[in-house]
Amino acid sequence: MPVTTIEWIDGKVRMIDQTRLPEELVYLEINNVDQMAEAIKSLRIRGAPAIGIAGAFGLLLGLQNFQGEDKEEFFNLLHKTAEYLNATRPTAVNLSWALNRMKKMAEENRARAIPEIKQILVKEALQIWEEDRQICRRMGRHGAELIKDGMNILTHCNTGALATADYGTALGVIFTAHQQGKKIHVYVDETRPLLQGARLNMWELMHEGIDATLICDNTAAFVMQQGKVDCVILGADRIARNGDTANKIGTYNLAVLAEKHKLPFYVAAPVSTIDFNIQKGTQIPIEERAPEEVTEGFGKRTAPRGAKVYSPAFDITPNELITAIITEEGILYPPFEENLNKLAMKKGII
Amino acid sequence: MPVTTIEWIDGKVRMIDQTRLPEELVYLEINNVDQMAEAIKSLRIRGAPAIGIAGAFGLLLGLQNFQGEDKEEFFNLLHKTAEYLNATRPTAVNLSWALNRMKKMAEENRARAIPEIKQILVKEALQIWEEDRQICRRMGRHGAELIKDGMNILTHCNTGALATADYGTALGVIFTAHQQGKKIHVYVDETRPLLQGARLNMWELMHEGIDATLICDNTAAFVMQQGKVDCVILGADRIARNGDTANKIGTYNLAVLAEKHKLPFYVAAPVSTIDFNIQKGTQIPIEERAPEEVTEGFGKRTAPRGAKVYSPAFDITPNELITAIITEEGILYPPFEENLNKLAMKKGII
Repeated sequence: MPVTTIEWIDGKVRMIDQTRLPEELVYLEINNVDQMAEAIKSLRIRGAPAIGIAGAFGLLLGLQNFQGEDKEEFFNLLHKTAEYLNATRPTAVNLSWALNRMKKMAEENRARAIPEIKQILVKEALQIWEEDRQICRRMGRHGAELIKDGMNILTHCNTGALATADYGTALGVIFTAHQQGKKIHVYVDETRPLLQGARLNMWELMHEGIDATLICDNTAAFVMQQGKVDCVILGADRIARNGDTANKIGTYNLAVLAEKHKLPFYVAAPVSTIDFNIQKGTQIPIEERAPEEVTEGFGKRTAPRGAKVYSPAFDITPNELITAIITEEGILYPPFEENLNKLAMKKGII
Repeated sequence: MPVTTIEWIDGKVRMIDQTRLPEELVYLEINNVDQMAEAIKSLRIRGAPAIGIAGAFGLLLGLQNFQGEDKEEFFNLLHKTAEYLNATRPTAVNLSWALNRMKKMAEENRARAIPEIKQILVKEALQIWEEDRQICRRMGRHGAELIKDGMNILTHCNTGALATADYGTALGVIFTAHQQGKKIHVYVDETRPLLQGARLNMWELMHEGIDATLICDNTAAFVMQQGKVDCVILGADRIARNGDTANKIGTYNLAVLAEKHKLPFYVAAPVSTIDFNIQKGTQIPIEERAPEEVTEGFGKRTAPRGAKVYSPAFDITPNELITAIITEEGILYPPFEENLNKLAMKKGII
């Protein structure tokens, strides 16, 4: 059973503080929107699908104490709160996707009384959460078709239960293959600077009893050179209409390595991660993180004071380096532009 | 002026404890061979040329208290001590190169009295140290020809004064170019797990007033993709006869990235780093380091207890990914097998 990363209980959010893992499993109670914004910014909760849910729950927190019957005031607060939450992290599209869905639902019910709109929004947020659980399972089943018995899989960052409402994206595929009885082994990139691979992916894999080996990010190339990897699978924070993919910094590096070593390179992400408003990867905004995450992330200073640091949280992998994109709707292959368009039309997104 | 990383003073070794940098500049006094072996193993001193010198000085420490006139006993101690020191780190050839040179010198003077042999060995060790200083300067001058004004250079691990007796290998090239008045900017890979790039290279570059930006190892690809890098230059721990190069883990990764982005990839190393007894890279022994360096290297645990770790200290870059090898004898280009052979013949090595 995967851990429950985030849930809505009686007007409060209960969620795991991921910055404390793997040493301590601590649950936070989040009571207001400022606490939620802080939690997203400081990566107490992270992972594209999970921050979508956190955004929707955060919006509920921001609205639930609204008193009175002034609808304009209520909708002003709704839009302001959504904007505030949306600004916490710029790259993952799931955050704005979930907030837009909430706003749309509210607007569609503008005619109703405010307490009723609030009720509808709670239902919608829980629906986003529940859908993500179903999506993880379906993505897992589709993706597991690509995983053969005996495979060595390399992955990056955390893409499991901690990044979603349930089972994970890339890690969900791995979990499903494992549950199907396939004997697999996973190489886990530690994922600098915040070590989501070492801290979170290793924790989840060991929890599920899957054979996993931790490596430094710079070691993946050597492991591939030695023929020890059969495929790479990882998640996404935003996928452009042409298939270009923004994901945790280091993803593009692995894509180049996979190409060099002729290994399949799979991206696993829900359809909500695809941004049909964006034509290509270079248009995706890339968040830069604070230098301290690199220079004193381990509690000890590891670079000279005053050292200049460049720390993008994500990078862009061009579509031509991606073998397939695994979604809850099935596995998409190139040409991605064409096949993503078909998917969007089928789902009524464009 | 570069710092003095290691020197021989009145029968003792004075050297910087590099594990304390960048926070503290602490000098150690090393009085016996066990202290030296520990210092090499735990990377208080590291860098291929520097550990060659540390090995030669360590041998002096192991012999200096020898009493008596039993020459067989003296030579037994000499060989045993050399073997002991040589086993501290297996990949860098400079350690065995320096120890072999010391042994050869002793054997050539076997007929002399023991105190005289000791004297000769002190002279030889100081000679190795002094030669390394000259070699650094000559390598720097040759390599600087490849560095143009305005260049952005990416480098990995520490290859400066701290890795040698003087100026450094790859960093020596950068220092020389800077002193020639070329305006350059350096991207510094932090170099997991022990962060020699973040801790040591940044410290040396900032000390020399060279514009430098620290990045996580997994960020180099994205920086190259954005067109921000003009060349890669780094050191070597052992070069096979065909040009295949063992160097700090992550080097092969950068070589693949440089190939993908059509960037020149330069290796800077003294001729003593070339192992003419080894035909190709796969024959070079690769040291594996303890899991704790990855999982709790900085005082804080960053992976679950019991996590399996693969931590090779070095990797192998095949010769076809190397643009040129910069040595004190000049710049070598492909075909490396042929050109390294010519060099070896010229130097009387083979």
